[in-house]
Amino acid sequence: MTLDEKIAQLIQLAVPFFEGASDAGLITGPMASLGIGEDTVRGAGSVLGMAGAQETINVQRKHLEHNRLGIPLLMMADIVHGFKTIFPVPLAIGCSWDLALAERSAEIAAKEASVSGVHVTYAPMVDLVRDPRWGRVMESTGEDPYLNALFARAFVRGFQGDDLSGDLDRVAACVKHFAAYGAAEAGRDYNTVDLSARQLREFYLPAYKAALDEGCEMVMTSFNTVDGVPATGNVPLMRKLLREEWGFDGVLISDWGAVKELIAHGIAEDEREAALKAMKAGVDIEMMTSCYAKHLSELIEAGEVDIALIDEAVMRILQLKDKLGLFENPYRAADPEREKEIVFSDAHRAAALELARKSCVLLKNDGVLPLSPALKVAVVGPFARSGDLLGPWSWTGSQDAVVRVSEAIRAKASTPGAVTVAEGCGIETESTEAQLLELEAAAQGADVIVLALGEHSDMSGEAGCRADIRLPEAQLALIRRIKTFGKPVVAVLFNGRPLDLNGVLDKADAVLEAWFPGSEGGTAVADLLYGDANPSGRLTMSFPYSVGQVPVYYNAFNTGRPQGAPDAQVRYVSQYLDIPNEPLLPFGYGLGYAAFEYGEAALSADVMTPDAPIRLTVRVANVGQVAGVETVQLYVRDIAGEVVRPVKELKGFRQVELQPGESAEVAFELSESQLRYYHPDLTHASDAGAFLAMVGPNSRDVASLPFKLVK
Amino acid sequence: MTLDEKIAQLIQLAVPFFEGASDAGLITGPMASLGIGEDTVRGAGSVLGMAGAQETINVQRKHLEHNRLGIPLLMMADIVHGFKTIFPVPLAIGCSWDLALAERSAEIAAKEASVSGVHVTYAPMVDLVRDPRWGRVMESTGEDPYLNALFARAFVRGFQGDDLSGDLDRVAACVKHFAAYGAAEAGRDYNTVDLSARQLREFYLPAYKAALDEGCEMVMTSFNTVDGVPATGNVPLMRKLLREEWGFDGVLISDWGAVKELIAHGIAEDEREAALKAMKAGVDIEMMTSCYAKHLSELIEAGEVDIALIDEAVMRILQLKDKLGLFENPYRAADPEREKEIVFSDAHRAAALELARKSCVLLKNDGVLPLSPALKVAVVGPFARSGDLLGPWSWTGSQDAVVRVSEAIRAKASTPGAVTVAEGCGIETESTEAQLLELEAAAQGADVIVLALGEHSDMSGEAGCRADIRLPEAQLALIRRIKTFGKPVVAVLFNGRPLDLNGVLDKADAVLEAWFPGSEGGTAVADLLYGDANPSGRLTMSFPYSVGQVPVYYNAFNTGRPQGAPDAQVRYVSQYLDIPNEPLLPFGYGLGYAAFEYGEAALSADVMTPDAPIRLTVRVANVGQVAGVETVQLYVRDIAGEVVRPVKELKGFRQVELQPGESAEVAFELSESQLRYYHPDLTHASDAGAFLAMVGPNSRDVASLPFKLVK
Repeated sequence: MTLDEKIAQLIQLAVPFFEGASDAGLITGPMASLGIGEDTVRGAGSVLGMAGAQETINVQRKHLEHNRLGIPLLMMADIVHGFKTIFPVPLAIGCSWDLALAERSAEIAAKEASVSGVHVTYAPMVDLVRDPRWGRVMESTGEDPYLNALFARAFVRGFQGDDLSGDLDRVAACVKHFAAYGAAEAGRDYNTVDLSARQLREFYLPAYKAALDEGCEMVMTSFNTVDGVPATGNVPLMRKLLREEWGFDGVLISDWGAVKELIAHGIAEDEREAALKAMKAGVDIEMMTSCYAKHLSELIEAGEVDIALIDEAVMRILQLKDKLGLFENPYRAADPEREKEIVFSDAHRAAALELARKSCVLLKNDGVLPLSPALKVAVVGPFARSGDLLGPWSWTGSQDAVVRVSEAIRAKASTPGAVTVAEGCGIETESTEAQLLELEAAAQGADVIVLALGEHSDMSGEAGCRADIRLPEAQLALIRRIKTFGKPVVAVLFNGRPLDLNGVLDKADAVLEAWFPGSEGGTAVADLLYGDANPSGRLTMSFPYSVGQVPVYYNAFNTGRPQGAPDAQVRYVSQYLDIPNEPLLPFGYGLGYAAFEYGEAALSADVMTPDAPIRLTVRVANVGQVAGVETVQLYVRDIAGEVVRPVKELKGFRQVELQPGESAEVAFELSESQLRYYHPDLTHASDAGAFLAMVGPNSRDVASLPFKLVK
Repeated sequence: MTLDEKIAQLIQLAVPFFEGASDAGLITGPMASLGIGEDTVRGAGSVLGMAGAQETINVQRKHLEHNRLGIPLLMMADIVHGFKTIFPVPLAIGCSWDLALAERSAEIAAKEASVSGVHVTYAPMVDLVRDPRWGRVMESTGEDPYLNALFARAFVRGFQGDDLSGDLDRVAACVKHFAAYGAAEAGRDYNTVDLSARQLREFYLPAYKAALDEGCEMVMTSFNTVDGVPATGNVPLMRKLLREEWGFDGVLISDWGAVKELIAHGIAEDEREAALKAMKAGVDIEMMTSCYAKHLSELIEAGEVDIALIDEAVMRILQLKDKLGLFENPYRAADPEREKEIVFSDAHRAAALELARKSCVLLKNDGVLPLSPALKVAVVGPFARSGDLLGPWSWTGSQDAVVRVSEAIRAKASTPGAVTVAEGCGIETESTEAQLLELEAAAQGADVIVLALGEHSDMSGEAGCRADIRLPEAQLALIRRIKTFGKPVVAVLFNGRPLDLNGVLDKADAVLEAWFPGSEGGTAVADLLYGDANPSGRLTMSFPYSVGQVPVYYNAFNTGRPQGAPDAQVRYVSQYLDIPNEPLLPFGYGLGYAAFEYGEAALSADVMTPDAPIRLTVRVANVGQVAGVETVQLYVRDIAGEVVRPVKELKGFRQVELQPGESAEVAFELSESQLRYYHPDLTHASDAGAFLAMVGPNSRDVASLPFKLVK
């Protein structure tokens, strides 16, 4: 390979650059703005954001016609929560606590994407999130490092399967965004991240590491700084930690434009220096900017970049292409005929429905739910008829194919004609006269009002940050108005972040958090409202009392003056004057239609040693009238460490399905390795001493059992 | 000395423990709760929170009667912004940008405290602050490390003078809270702090270091964690950095109860381990808990604490007592007769008035100010008649002696009888019928309404944290009501933090931020409103657009996708969907009655070398009708560093007083040493390359001049 051919492999461009792509007419525009020539485009190693069997085949064919060495393009795309069959957003999937279904959702996404010509998905996103102002919390499974790590593994297994080379229904996964993108200051996207090295390892890194332990082929850099240096130019993070310490030898790709952004960040004066710093950090592929294309040759000539760095980057990219079988079959699974059968198939939609049902979280129920089919229902609110249930990162999906809430409810009612529908107001625009008239007409004869509220999908996702995390005032006003009708109100929420639900939770008789539930969202919601499915979702991110409480998360430290301690003063404790310390709804919280009672929990021993784990058991009984799934949660607290330790850390959970009157003993094994944490010297070890084991239905309502670790 | 006598020197107890103190009747209560005996109390090395010449003399005399070795008590107290003569709160003093007056305020506080028997003040507090939810921002001078360092030095000089031994009008200073207490997560007092080591050094440590460079005798530990370990038990922070690296050999004291709080923090299982960890970290004095008293002996016997650690701690305490001359005269300057002359003297009050005038910041003026004495004025609002102008940490002051706003305005008016007064509403309670009647009567004949609003002093200060940083709704409603009167409205704000001023700034015709202005606050405000003084204060902490924007500060990093860049996309930039990135009012901002024009700024050279500083000059002219003080501010930006660098950093300022029509050339020298920052390896160095020098009246409105550093 010539040097130019090598460098071209390190370049990734978006669809408009490529011949054969349907919108190829744009080619001269972006090429000109990047300042690169046709040769560079023709040699480029990978393409971004392309999908569709015929289109990818066309582009690959054209590419190979011009490529001297016959190196096929790698086709990459953001397939985040489904391809055409859109699953709930990842934050909702997290709330299912269902790793098998999460894996299945990724498997289906991979199958649909692969037959459509995609080779790599930029997923899973496993950034730990604590700040609901940040729009990308919807892409994460939440605030817990342990749970995030489990979901990271499940998604990677689902995307890649056991045999990426042999199984053409799979795609390579690319875990992102390395690292700690979720800690953006003030919840503003792309903003500065500053963490101690220990905090980074304890909370933020485990999920990325889990994805890599599962064999994830690629890693994407994050936009943010890590210890003062943008990830894309961060040698300690990428060369030292990711490559050397963790032994990652797959492909490292920049996020969109992130190499050139080293200039705006202020660690490079120009594109040449940006290329130098990214290459030194070990970024193999530069996405969508041309610093490598324009400057790597001269950097090598000048002796500033060792050709060995280029060679190893190229080798990693070629190895991935080889692993995907592209040298044998550059079109891989792309197949326009099979595409029609597989994509958005009934089986896939059924899986999306199942996961959507499990992802919704019932936040409140004064008894109005489940609804009887005999009731006359008014379905009102800006989401009543909306197809905007797919959420951000669903560009391959279609809103036209979405089951609407009003339709799904009509399908449930014994007299479909008795279901009335009204918008009430816009998502961000206050009620018009016409909307009010429609609303009053719809509500007039209704027995119950289902109020479908939320954020449109651009209000979260990338760059979708909000300083005010309440529902828009127009919708809060709609709730207040509807309360005056004096009828039971069931609020169903579609949104991409934990909201401040004051003004909702206190006013509605029942509240179902549906997130963005995906293609089958409407049906899932109706199934849950009518009791054809029993809500079992549990929050994986705290719902703050107000934005002024942010960040608030369950696995926080105790402080030296915790509120509520037995000897606490009235004033001089860690608290606000105007709101509680506790979030409005805690991590792990969720309701259902069954009723679970916990028996007395017991430990098999009150002393653990490194060789002798202990066992926690608790009997859980369904004392309700319907079958249901309970998510039994195990937490641990280390009473005193070398550094401060969280007041609770999730260490395990079990989902048990119980019939009415049934009970089950739930057991957790707890061993020394689960008590390890990062010490001041960054060793990962446990300390002998006192601990608490806690078990319960959520992070707030737990029974505590003391034990000791003896070493 | 016996071991017990040594250990007793390390103990500090509050007033109620001591015989001779006026409230000594409480002695049995706290002694019992601490689990210590009378011998320990009798031997204690220092006392906390005692003041008053006669009382301190009594206590010292009683103490010496029982003390075998005749070692006098060290009397310490929180003298933060004045003793009886209360100056504006430190955040307000910061806004004066007047280092000489700040020093003078500390000198006066020292003089009043010293004659009242105090030997050490727990001040200055120099924590860098970025989160207005935190109640203790009022104790800091703001968000800038350079300015905070200058004020730290000024306060230490003022308290200690040049000759602490010889000058009995001075007291020893104790800089606090070491370290980074101001970075409490979510703005909740005592909460976790997590920072990278570099960020800690770059922003948070400089002001503490400056205080020590100025000779500050003592350091107080902070309540928070630093890199996972509470400061009070933090060996790397205290032994390594403070003692070894910085060479601090003065007395290190815990904050109130902070040794025992190591248990709640979770780095000590019990009081014994807490004592062990604090002693190992180098904490000399344990304030208000009894871990040392109860456990140091056994820790020494067990070989876990080296007696040498005790000896050095005792030696440092005795050396401080010696330096203060207590062995020669244990009563030092305490003198009931002289106390009467010195404390709250006219000269001191005049100094407090001068500083209060300089500390207020005029935030808006549509032309209604200054007021003419001929106008009929209605002074309304919960602060119209309030004496609560002293602010938190003014326990030695008296509200009875405070000049009220309404009185001061009445004294200005040419017809005092034409000044009407009404409360309008409570600080947090909505208008009563009676208040509304009084309000309407007061406003009826008025030409202008002065609206005195704010937070009561318990709404900020220690543990005074608010999640909602707006004025209480009752007061916002009062503004809306008063707007309906159709008269010019001048809002004067008394508060301890930057507020979200939406609903105030947009409604009032003029807004004066008066903070808590101290004993002479009413007069200062009236002087400014009537133009007898010209407002010259400039904000040293950004006023956020809303709490959802917090933390927001001027010296932030650019990010890779800054808003407003020439090639910025519409959506994919670092921003919120619902509010601007910019604070409502930026650092350095403030108005006055003069009008300053800046000429074209110039650099003496566009290349700087380590040996050749450059000079920035700019001509500033007063084109207004009255004399005024302009604070010309110099900022620098390092275009590309090894780590990301702030978009602006304050590097200098000049206050120039100009008569109408007068102009002056303002010059700044800028040298290589000012361009240094902490590199990834924590070396403090500059990088060759491109910079911007910026000059202007605040951090937002600057002219930029490029230069290069060549090395």
